Amino acid sequence: MAEDRADGGTAPGPAPAGTASPGVASTDTAPPGAVLAPEEAAALDAHWRAANYLAVGQIYLMANPLLREPLRPEHIKPRLLGHWGTSPGLNLVHTHLNRVIRARGLDALCVWGPGHGGPAVLANSWLEGSYSEVYPDVSRDEPGMARLFRQFSFPGGVPSHVAPETPGSIHEGGELGYSLAHAYGAALDNPDLLVACVVGDGEAETGPLAGSWHADKFLDPAHDGAVLPILHLNGYKIANPTVLARLPQDELDQLLRGYGHEPLHVSGDRPAEVHQALAAALDTALDRIRDIQTAARRRGATERPRWPVIVLRTPKGWTGPAEVDGKPVEGTWRAHQVPLPGVRDDPAHLAQLEAWLRSYRPEELFDEHGRPRPEVLACVPEGARRLGATPHANGGKLLRALPLAPLERFAVRVDKPGASSHQPTEVLGALIEQVMADTADRRDFRLVGPDETASNRLQAVYGATAKTWQEEILPTDEDLDRHGRVMEVLSEHLCQGWLEGYLLTGRHGLFSCYEAFVHIVDSMVNQHVKWLKTSRTLPWRAPVASLNYLLTSHVWRQDHNGFSHQDPGFIDHVLNKSPEVVRVYLPPDANTLLSVADHALRSRDHVNVIVAGKNAAPDWLTLDQARAHCARGLGVWDWAGTERPGDVPDVVLACAGDVPTLEVLAAASLLRTELPELAVRVVNIVDLARLMPHEEHPHGMKHAEYDALFPPGKPVIMAYHGYPWLIHRLAYRRRGHADLHVRGYKEMGTTTTPFDMVVRNDLDRYRLVMDGIDRVPGLAVRAAVVRQRMEDARTRHHDWIRRHGADMPEVADWTWPT
Amino acid sequence: MAEDRADGGTAPGPAPAGTASPGVASTDTAPPGAVLAPEEAAALDAHWRAANYLAVGQIYLMANPLLREPLRPEHIKPRLLGHWGTSPGLNLVHTHLNRVIRARGLDALCVWGPGHGGPAVLANSWLEGSYSEVYPDVSRDEPGMARLFRQFSFPGGVPSHVAPETPGSIHEGGELGYSLAHAYGAALDNPDLLVACVVGDGEAETGPLAGSWHADKFLDPAHDGAVLPILHLNGYKIANPTVLARLPQDELDQLLRGYGHEPLHVSGDRPAEVHQALAAALDTALDRIRDIQTAARRRGATERPRWPVIVLRTPKGWTGPAEVDGKPVEGTWRAHQVPLPGVRDDPAHLAQLEAWLRSYRPEELFDEHGRPRPEVLACVPEGARRLGATPHANGGKLLRALPLAPLERFAVRVDKPGASSHQPTEVLGALIEQVMADTADRRDFRLVGPDETASNRLQAVYGATAKTWQEEILPTDEDLDRHGRVMEVLSEHLCQGWLEGYLLTGRHGLFSCYEAFVHIVDSMVNQHVKWLKTSRTLPWRAPVASLNYLLTSHVWRQDHNGFSHQDPGFIDHVLNKSPEVVRVYLPPDANTLLSVADHALRSRDHVNVIVAGKNAAPDWLTLDQARAHCARGLGVWDWAGTERPGDVPDVVLACAGDVPTLEVLAAASLLRTELPELAVRVVNIVDLARLMPHEEHPHGMKHAEYDALFPPGKPVIMAYHGYPWLIHRLAYRRRGHADLHVRGYKEMGTTTTPFDMVVRNDLDRYRLVMDGIDRVPGLAVRAAVVRQRMEDARTRHHDWIRRHGADMPEVADWTWPT
Repeated sequence: MAEDRADGGTAPGPAPAGTASPGVASTDTAPPGAVLAPEEAAALDAHWRAANYLAVGQIYLMANPLLREPLRPEHIKPRLLGHWGTSPGLNLVHTHLNRVIRARGLDALCVWGPGHGGPAVLANSWLEGSYSEVYPDVSRDEPGMARLFRQFSFPGGVPSHVAPETPGSIHEGGELGYSLAHAYGAALDNPDLLVACVVGDGEAETGPLAGSWHADKFLDPAHDGAVLPILHLNGYKIANPTVLARLPQDELDQLLRGYGHEPLHVSGDRPAEVHQALAAALDTALDRIRDIQTAARRRGATERPRWPVIVLRTPKGWTGPAEVDGKPVEGTWRAHQVPLPGVRDDPAHLAQLEAWLRSYRPEELFDEHGRPRPEVLACVPEGARRLGATPHANGGKLLRALPLAPLERFAVRVDKPGASSHQPTEVLGALIEQVMADTADRRDFRLVGPDETASNRLQAVYGATAKTWQEEILPTDEDLDRHGRVMEVLSEHLCQGWLEGYLLTGRHGLFSCYEAFVHIVDSMVNQHVKWLKTSRTLPWRAPVASLNYLLTSHVWRQDHNGFSHQDPGFIDHVLNKSPEVVRVYLPPDANTLLSVADHALRSRDHVNVIVAGKNAAPDWLTLDQARAHCARGLGVWDWAGTERPGDVPDVVLACAGDVPTLEVLAAASLLRTELPELAVRVVNIVDLARLMPHEEHPHGMKHAEYDALFPPGKPVIMAYHGYPWLIHRLAYRRRGHADLHVRGYKEMGTTTTPFDMVVRNDLDRYRLVMDGIDRVPGLAVRAAVVRQRMEDARTRHHDWIRRHGADMPEVADWTWPT
Repeated sequence: MAEDRADGGTAPGPAPAGTASPGVASTDTAPPGAVLAPEEAAALDAHWRAANYLAVGQIYLMANPLLREPLRPEHIKPRLLGHWGTSPGLNLVHTHLNRVIRARGLDALCVWGPGHGGPAVLANSWLEGSYSEVYPDVSRDEPGMARLFRQFSFPGGVPSHVAPETPGSIHEGGELGYSLAHAYGAALDNPDLLVACVVGDGEAETGPLAGSWHADKFLDPAHDGAVLPILHLNGYKIANPTVLARLPQDELDQLLRGYGHEPLHVSGDRPAEVHQALAAALDTALDRIRDIQTAARRRGATERPRWPVIVLRTPKGWTGPAEVDGKPVEGTWRAHQVPLPGVRDDPAHLAQLEAWLRSYRPEELFDEHGRPRPEVLACVPEGARRLGATPHANGGKLLRALPLAPLERFAVRVDKPGASSHQPTEVLGALIEQVMADTADRRDFRLVGPDETASNRLQAVYGATAKTWQEEILPTDEDLDRHGRVMEVLSEHLCQGWLEGYLLTGRHGLFSCYEAFVHIVDSMVNQHVKWLKTSRTLPWRAPVASLNYLLTSHVWRQDHNGFSHQDPGFIDHVLNKSPEVVRVYLPPDANTLLSVADHALRSRDHVNVIVAGKNAAPDWLTLDQARAHCARGLGVWDWAGTERPGDVPDVVLACAGDVPTLEVLAAASLLRTELPELAVRVVNIVDLARLMPHEEHPHGMKHAEYDALFPPGKPVIMAYHGYPWLIHRLAYRRRGHADLHVRGYKEMGTTTTPFDMVVRNDLDRYRLVMDGIDRVPGLAVRAAVVRQRMEDARTRHHDWIRRHGADMPEVADWTWPT
């Protein structure tokens, strides 16, 4: 803040040395070449000042919002939280987006990368009225302003970051790096939408953001909307300068051109000049975007456009305190959070805060009722064009149910369990192809994945659409097209960000990924689950389509992808999250996969994790059986067991996952032959959360149900797809927990065959038979002979694979005895 | 592969149309301007052909390695695994690095980004002899070649990716994105080392790799070595073209210049020309690097240098089959893995494979014993200069113990438990400062973090060193210096990658990170743990310093960082990994943090996760007590409980984590006052793995120990830092498990104060007292009164914070009654 204002003055003064500058525009005459007439510039500046005032108010005040009386310590919140540094820049961008939306009649959405500048986005929503529409108690007057201020980062109030609670938001402010990916996801298949995206120069250092710049190679100017990145160089992070802000401009321009953009620069610390420059840059950018879209849509242009990017260089904490306690603050990293931390105890800080607030001349901005004056609101668009009111940021309002053909068209025929085999994900591919075909005009479904769609056996989808690609296409290329709806890029972050942005703006999708690599997006799925959890509590947010993962090339196929990165723990990670949101499905065959996928694609506000194999595997259930089984989530497979109706089984063999199911059935068939007197129950689990207590997860079984399936006192040998202890953490409250013995994946470095992986993890059929024999008391002596045969089979297997490099025929060729 | 060779010919032929090309150089005369004399070019080409031959052999052959007889199906492995596509490019780079290492006497290391090209790196190691030195049974002759081929991706053999088993490697091939970060980490403080880094164009699409290009802003040409990125554009991923390979060259150059590099291009599909061009480019790059280093070291130059980058554009699967079954393979994505999948069943494929192998003219490359001929080895450096033998890739060999001053110098004085308070991480900061001071000359310790060192209260370190920064430094900047050893960049990926590269080359470090954001590197820590797990089994790999995390600004302080991204699940993630590697510590105060950090910094081959608060918290233990407590990992705090010696307690209050410890002690003090007749035991847990069974983790307690601490049948109320069910998954095998009741963190969206966070999670003192009352049978009627008082306190708290925005004084000002 300029010293003259810090001293209590409220009139605009000359720009001081350094980056400090007056908080108000000099608007008497338009400078030469000005885009804005003086009165428009003045109105924009008034809006900006109002937003800045409101941002500061939120950080500091719990009373006296209009400064009707001198500021006293009791007006100040006891705990000062929030980020001032980025707020004036966000306010400036919001103000100017208002202008162009209104002037051009745009449908626009803005993704606020520096989302920790929550005070700014909240201020703008309150100014434009969208805030009071969803939160009527925070009215657009003095009492509402008081609530707006008090609730900010206050117990029972709203977060200091942009969040689901923030109208107009689809992007959580918190963990940085995903703004551009979200913006591109929002723009896909929204041809009339402008998605502005403020990228902070801190965020720009993250890997995911750095990788997202190349998303312009996947944006179709004919069918998709435009993304306008606004790289905001305020120069500093928490405690350091930023890499991009310290680049010489020519080097930065090379970088941005290398990303495929044409940069437009806006730089300064004098508001009057910056208003003109930013207005001009926005006009230029929007003209270019219009030209690009026209060329693609009317003239069929296919060359990849060079989309504009705006580089906005303004001081961090602009118009805030220039110095505090003798140290420079405005224009440095010290402006990052709360520039005057001592206002409750230090009268000088308090006076400086009051001068700072008054420097915006609130009496000119708000009327006697605390309502924004007409000049302040002159730039604000109408109705749903307001950034806080666009339905694109409340995507559930735009969502249409996905057309899903009857599963009978894709189901595999199963005459007897295990008599045939299919690649489950290939079967699913036909369903996805049909979804693509049925949404060819609507364009509201996307398949994303890191270069693995065909590897994951979903290649049927290319019968209905192609992979989007805006770079050169060569004659040898296959399935590439400028208008395709499959998104493949070797970045799980970008895939996840695209899909999140696409879903939150009211469309549908599926993310297919190798299980090994999905941990890359652990922290992103965290944030998405938390977003959904909070959204579900907000009546004004309509439900959106679920985020659906198909994890394949899974951990039991680490023969090709080495031990180095195999890990089935994404399930563990997801199940730590809010139970009302997360679902984990382990369909054991093709028809169950169809049923689960159909359910997931119809569901809302969930994160569905589906783990399924791409390798040929036995078909166990008919479609009808699969539907019934999936509806229950788990159940006894009578045909596989040997218990007589009404009896209590001697042992339960349970399985969750395709490979574990195969091994359990092979074990059951061995026991049936070797120890036919043993009453074996086979239970298959599709929906993992069923194991949890009903109080802990909505899908959790009641204890009576659990006990009926897994009779207490009877040994349960469970073969599980992932880390075995996850099952214990889900089921530790069950009565029979002490009798539950889980075989699953443990970390072991090994180069091996698929079955050897199973053996080395003690999940193999022979081991499971031995487990059963060991756990059931009072078995005949013959059991010891059987046990020895199992041991021998394991030894034989070990020798065989080391000699032949492949699984032994009795395993590779095994089928269920029909 | 050129058709003439596919047809069985072995003589060099003309380049066919498209990208196919002959596999051998025309070496009769050197072309104009050639760098290489004809005989040197011929020798390099021979080395390259030998490496290519060995790569193909590994993928296909389990017998007949030298093709002494016509190839028959039984010579072929039954399961064909591995990646051919990237291998010829890696072989080319290795061959040419050999040349310059030898010619210039370089100390060099190479990071192979396309690490799934394992066959190439293994081939080169075998050729240069480094492989046989660590694996004598894989000798450099025909029997050894046979073993080299057979073991590749074969049961009991070696992974198909570059891995710890691969000599010369510090970078696991598997999950892509981290090569450049590893390379920079290796180069730090290694002034005489050249770190070449092959970046694949697939990997280049990942976020972490895209963000790593800016690591050149942190590389000090005076004290650090050089990183030479070699961007290998072979054009394709698994199933798609790559983004960077399809950029026009001028756009790619802008991108690379924008990253701060000066590009040198090598492009072609004619080996003779590519050999000359690559040799020239390497000479130019190394001359420039020498000039840059000379300027910085001799002339004190401080301008940021523009480091060279080599862009190598050669066909994918170069010299392999040009076509298979009528479809183009060489130079397309179809060359990615195994180009001839049907060789065991299809005689035409088998013939094509034999022609392919013979096109390298193995009889010219290997003598009658299968040993590489002298011409092939002419370019290979000597001894430790060989890329497979450099001690920098076996960093434990170079590791020196860290100088660690006595902890007495940093410990806080504790006269009585809880009588004073400190910010634990600030206390640790002084220890880190001393380590920095004591390694000022050795330069083998780095502190990395995403812009949070000061925020995490470790700012004392700036007394000994600064943050490294090679961009412009302004007068207002603080603690920035070109030669600093603190690394701050807003990319957790880059921080993690730097540190991994630094540690694996034999140095020490610490990663300080907000707990909220460390999930960003989940998949990276996976790979590092797996690397260490495997390394520990290899006698020739010397132990390296542990990877140490300090997680702070933790989940119980989400007042500032919102609900959106809080998550204590990194602990869960890490504890899924190999128990011999992972350790989790939750020191409850300043002195225990010192003791734990000292232990972690001395340890080897571990991943240590230390979770500690940065906010002021009571000091509980003296340094001696802290040492004893940490050595045991957990123990009874007699002074806090009310049991009489020899008695069995009525209830155990256990705690793990700083905030849980505070709440448990507050609960214990309430119980002492309110129900003095209750025998309460207080147990504090520092080392979380102690709860696991001894069979499951080396730190796990034996059951007798556990039962002595937590008497079976007595209720245990445990307050835990993270997700409560983690404790159950660790302790489910314990006898007293049914009596174990855990309070921890559950997902809830809320804006609140620190204590309210605790209340809302039922981890607060009042709730813990109620838990004790509820679980202990036969308590006096008075207990019901106490219980009601606790309920009332919670209600009072709720009202207070909503009115005042801060914790109520009886909580905020509580201290342990001394």
